[in-house]
Amino acid sequence: MKTVAVKNIERAATEDISQLAKYGAATVHEAQRRTGLLKPYMRPIYAGARIAGSAVTVLAHPGDNWMLHVAIELCQPGDILIVGLSADNTDGMFGDLLATSAQTMGIQGLVIDAGVRDVADLKTMNFPVWSRAISAKGTVKETPGSVNLPIVCAGCAVNPGDVVVADDDGVCIVAREQVGEVIQKSEQRLTREEEVRTRLANGELGLDVYNMREKLAAAGLEYQE
Amino acid sequence: MKTVAVKNIERAATEDISQLAKYGAATVHEAQRRTGLLKPYMRPIYAGARIAGSAVTVLAHPGDNWMLHVAIELCQPGDILIVGLSADNTDGMFGDLLATSAQTMGIQGLVIDAGVRDVADLKTMNFPVWSRAISAKGTVKETPGSVNLPIVCAGCAVNPGDVVVADDDGVCIVAREQVGEVIQKSEQRLTREEEVRTRLANGELGLDVYNMREKLAAAGLEYQE
Amino acid sequence: MKTVAVKNIERAATEDISQLAKYGAATVHEAQRRTGLLKPYMRPIYAGARIAGSAVTVLAHPGDNWMLHVAIELCQPGDILIVGLSADNTDGMFGDLLATSAQTMGIQGLVIDAGVRDVADLKTMNFPVWSRAISAKGTVKETPGSVNLPIVCAGCAVNPGDVVVADDDGVCIVAREQVGEVIQKSEQRLTREEEVRTRLANGELGLDVYNMREKLAAAGLEYQE
Amino acid sequence: MKTVAVKNIERAATEDISQLAKYGAATVHEAQRRTGLLKPYMRPIYAGARIAGSAVTVLAHPGDNWMLHVAIELCQPGDILIVGLSADNTDGMFGDLLATSAQTMGIQGLVIDAGVRDVADLKTMNFPVWSRAISAKGTVKETPGSVNLPIVCAGCAVNPGDVVVADDDGVCIVAREQVGEVIQKSEQRLTREEEVRTRLANGELGLDVYNMREKLAAAGLEYQE
Amino acid sequence: MKTVAVKNIERAATEDISQLAKYGAATVHEAQRRTGLLKPYMRPIYAGARIAGSAVTVLAHPGDNWMLHVAIELCQPGDILIVGLSADNTDGMFGDLLATSAQTMGIQGLVIDAGVRDVADLKTMNFPVWSRAISAKGTVKETPGSVNLPIVCAGCAVNPGDVVVADDDGVCIVAREQVGEVIQKSEQRLTREEEVRTRLANGELGLDVYNMREKLAAAGLEYQE
Amino acid sequence: MKTVAVKNIERAATEDISQLAKYGAATVHEAQRRTGLLKPYMRPIYAGARIAGSAVTVLAHPGDNWMLHVAIELCQPGDILIVGLSADNTDGMFGDLLATSAQTMGIQGLVIDAGVRDVADLKTMNFPVWSRAISAKGTVKETPGSVNLPIVCAGCAVNPGDVVVADDDGVCIVAREQVGEVIQKSEQRLTREEEVRTRLANGELGLDVYNMREKLAAAGLEYQE
Repeated sequence: MKTVAVKNIERAATEDISQLAKYGAATVHEAQRRTGLLKPYMRPIYAGARIAGSAVTVLAHPGDNWMLHVAIELCQPGDILIVGLSADNTDGMFGDLLATSAQTMGIQGLVIDAGVRDVADLKTMNFPVWSRAISAKGTVKETPGSVNLPIVCAGCAVNPGDVVVADDDGVCIVAREQVGEVIQKSEQRLTREEEVRTRLANGELGLDVYNMREKLAAAGLEYQE
Repeated sequence: MKTVAVKNIERAATEDISQLAKYGAATVHEAQRRTGLLKPYMRPIYAGARIAGSAVTVLAHPGDNWMLHVAIELCQPGDILIVGLSADNTDGMFGDLLATSAQTMGIQGLVIDAGVRDVADLKTMNFPVWSRAISAKGTVKETPGSVNLPIVCAGCAVNPGDVVVADDDGVCIVAREQVGEVIQKSEQRLTREEEVRTRLANGELGLDVYNMREKLAAAGLEYQE
Repeated sequence: MKTVAVKNIERAATEDISQLAKYGAATVHEAQRRTGLLKPYMRPIYAGARIAGSAVTVLAHPGDNWMLHVAIELCQPGDILIVGLSADNTDGMFGDLLATSAQTMGIQGLVIDAGVRDVADLKTMNFPVWSRAISAKGTVKETPGSVNLPIVCAGCAVNPGDVVVADDDGVCIVAREQVGEVIQKSEQRLTREEEVRTRLANGELGLDVYNMREKLAAAGLEYQE
Repeated sequence: MKTVAVKNIERAATEDISQLAKYGAATVHEAQRRTGLLKPYMRPIYAGARIAGSAVTVLAHPGDNWMLHVAIELCQPGDILIVGLSADNTDGMFGDLLATSAQTMGIQGLVIDAGVRDVADLKTMNFPVWSRAISAKGTVKETPGSVNLPIVCAGCAVNPGDVVVADDDGVCIVAREQVGEVIQKSEQRLTREEEVRTRLANGELGLDVYNMREKLAAAGLEYQE
Repeated sequence: MKTVAVKNIERAATEDISQLAKYGAATVHEAQRRTGLLKPYMRPIYAGARIAGSAVTVLAHPGDNWMLHVAIELCQPGDILIVGLSADNTDGMFGDLLATSAQTMGIQGLVIDAGVRDVADLKTMNFPVWSRAISAKGTVKETPGSVNLPIVCAGCAVNPGDVVVADDDGVCIVAREQVGEVIQKSEQRLTREEEVRTRLANGELGLDVYNMREKLAAAGLEYQE
Repeated sequence: MKTVAVKNIERAATEDISQLAKYGAATVHEAQRRTGLLKPYMRPIYAGARIAGSAVTVLAHPGDNWMLHVAIELCQPGDILIVGLSADNTDGMFGDLLATSAQTMGIQGLVIDAGVRDVADLKTMNFPVWSRAISAKGTVKETPGSVNLPIVCAGCAVNPGDVVVADDDGVCIVAREQVGEVIQKSEQRLTREEEVRTRLANGELGLDVYNMREKLAAAGLEYQE
């Protein structure tokens, strides 16, 4: 493992990132053909946050949050810290002090495949975190990892500068080069969904809206009284 | 697996179902001798909902929500969709579009041994769901399952027309033929509990209210200073 | 396993216990060199409670809450019930009746390595619980365990009279003999953290506040543009 | 839960059961359209056994093996005990004494959604068990369950007299009424598989044997150099 | 956490320890009233070993096997290393080099609530290990823990000098002061079991051997044809 | 997700791959600074295999093994199929027919983050598999994934042509470009380990072989009698 911290990364355009935040994780995930989703054990520490930002990627070791300090310096306002671990771990690697520093630097939130603590304070500060666990367990600063190298977080490959989209449904990663295409497809999807929603709210059935009856019969579905 | 959708099922009387909703999952579970409970990994996506309704049973395959569309057409107002899976899965098989359709049809809620998404929207819509997971992961419509055949959901056998009782404590199934008996025993239980609650609130101990001291001594409990 | 209930235990001083409640689980855990923490699967049934109290220890068997009745009689106002299990279990071993009794006796809360039910009622009553699960599953009263003998709860050894500190971050145990030392170190820690928080909020980086740059270089970290 | 033990159950024909044993769990599961499989956490305590037999169904409570004694009396030679639990449990509910009794009665094996112990002895005795866990934890005899009522075991509904097919791949249940049909389809399947195996062993590809190339292209698969 | 290594510990008599090895984990666990068992996720890396020895207790940190080196020096021939972790971890903290050293010092085996590697070599060396996981993941030597202080391993409190009994059924701890009593009760148990085994092998039923019929009827069990 | 199958990939030199097989997963993992390891839930279906080969990467969907057929055609003798899933799944996606085809094509083995079946046959065929589960559950051929694009398998990023090293300790991935360096470092490591092994076997302690005593004292370790 290289113990490297890369200072400068490419980021997507700010207005594109804002756009992705509006769509949310589920829509973006669909727009890129159901890819880019972190495993569903990643949950928000409080409900209601919906953010998007450029990924500053961190590789850390279990029980060691040293690289988070390194990473904060390399962030720009609006960025999101996303942390992969070299082995499964639930220690509380981030708390109110690191959140104070991160928020001061303009960092929007944290996604970490480990634990987090001081969650009551983080909620009061309005600093959103998606994590694998909540744990008061503290950490050491012994073994360096990396910042802004490619990582795997909760089963998903993430490159620095990718866009992290996170809300109550989970976390989805959009590759930086695909941001434009994903926005376009998300828009199309929203338009289509709005039409469908109206029809369903008017009492039409999905079976008819999506023309499923024939395909179901072909697949062998039989109705019985 | 038969790919069958049964159109007409027997349902319990509406007033009986309402009565079961008042008791809640824990009381109903006790009233039928601690049976009928889904595994505790089934959790509500938001706190505070308490519903009961006739089970429209769905068997679906991992990552495939096709049968939910079939099932919605076969529901009556007040019904609850309950979905078993042919293998463990956490994909987000239900979201705001299906909820719009379900709510329009008068369906009260969903119990699904898989994932659900758009949970912020579902909460705003006041459409309660009990699920194994929350996940933005989308699904296909490829393989038919069944509607209104017997299923196993989260470790519990469910027949179509059974009454589903769900609240913050979890989900309990009442067999349709036992609804009358369960109501009677729930009432007795509530009366008994109300008396006990009053005595406990007045400072009597459970040891005395339930006459446990002698039985404890017989079981070998020794007190030491 | 001895089926013994010990009536009298040593407790820490009330003012010391109050002091520990103010610090919370994470600070206390750090102050005693990262020891005493229960596993992070122990979660509060509702957010926002922060309590500390003397441990009345209970050893119970899966699906059997008999000893909780025995334990309640032996509690003093301000105590916290903490329950270890002889094997993994998620049954709902505590509900609103036991909570009524416990609250009447002045017990502050419950920590249980099993399930709990009637959680909506418990929240209304403002009776906090940290548990492994929420489950409507009821329990029997068949096999005695012990009260106020040493137990293991969620991976942590607990002696009767130890101080239980519990909040949204989890549960930490302070050995009764170490209360004084832990308070002293917690105070020092809070003072230090307050200084650090101010500096971080002013835009200083952790890298500088903690003088990490040299140590990072020594550990082999390389910066790249 | 009714505490009932049903003495007489219908069983499938012995020669049909032997036939199902030859096919094994995977083939039988396919032959009945991928149904009837217990969850994959059910593992054999030693490799190499392959059995089929009529299900004598037991509902037991966590940590309580009382009903196993009741069930053994109701078995006939060749039967298989299959045990569902009223809540998740890993206690060692079956060991060498019960195995001695079961083997003396001609019982072929055990499938239990809990733990088992004395596994070295059971292997020596050549008494196969499929279980959720191996655990030395002993059990009590306090709460009756049922024998030969319908149960759910490891996520699958089982009726008394169904045929249990178990081998290194897991456990599959064949409904008694479908035994004939499943045998017929298993035979067809084996014949088909034998042809395919020969072709594959001769170097033909599955893509051609199954005529997949066109369907893959239609589904959008692109080849790149 | 004190970073202490205690050099001298009390041990049980060698002949008593040998006796406990003969009984095995399940018998010993029963003989001490179903206590002392490690959680069933602790599994042997190969089948067939059955050992008992004095516990040299180690507290280690995730991914850090430093204290194992310290502990080996403090062992006597016949001892068993038993390692608790300060947080859940599956890293491979022990491999063929440490096993070479341990075996040279006469250590009989290892019980570790983490991972182990080089398992093919360990099997060839005939050095038995009970662990939570098998993992090639290597470890650092950064943070000292303790040797021969009380620990919790896999949910069980262990004191230095307690006797560790381990076989294919799992791991059971016998408190040093109770060794005599446990041997006596194990002997009684084996005698009783031998009688029962003979009767069961002769076709008597557990229902009669244990006189269960009356108690079952009293508990409400009904037989149906 | 692109539904693409890449026909030609770069591979490491055959003799280098053979060399890596000799080192095994643990040594290779150490030689590349503790990187590249799949999560430890990936276990061999039988003990004793040790292989290395070029990765032909497959992305598949839960319960769908279509792409395995596509991948087999694109393999060369000595390759190893490595399969990532788009969501957690334990279905038996590979059995004796696919193994027959794979073995005929010269494929050495399979690494799959899902289930496998016909394990008794695979063992007889001597076709090694590392998987997350064993399950008889069959699969469909409905949704295309990809072959020879980068994947994530069991928490580790894998590129086509990387070298897969698998044995009883687990699975480690060596990036194709780093094969030379990893071989060099593995050799150095083996030499060093051989020296250490000899010294340890002669009774020297790790504390002295690795000069740990001073560092331990500096870290605060105290010895007590």
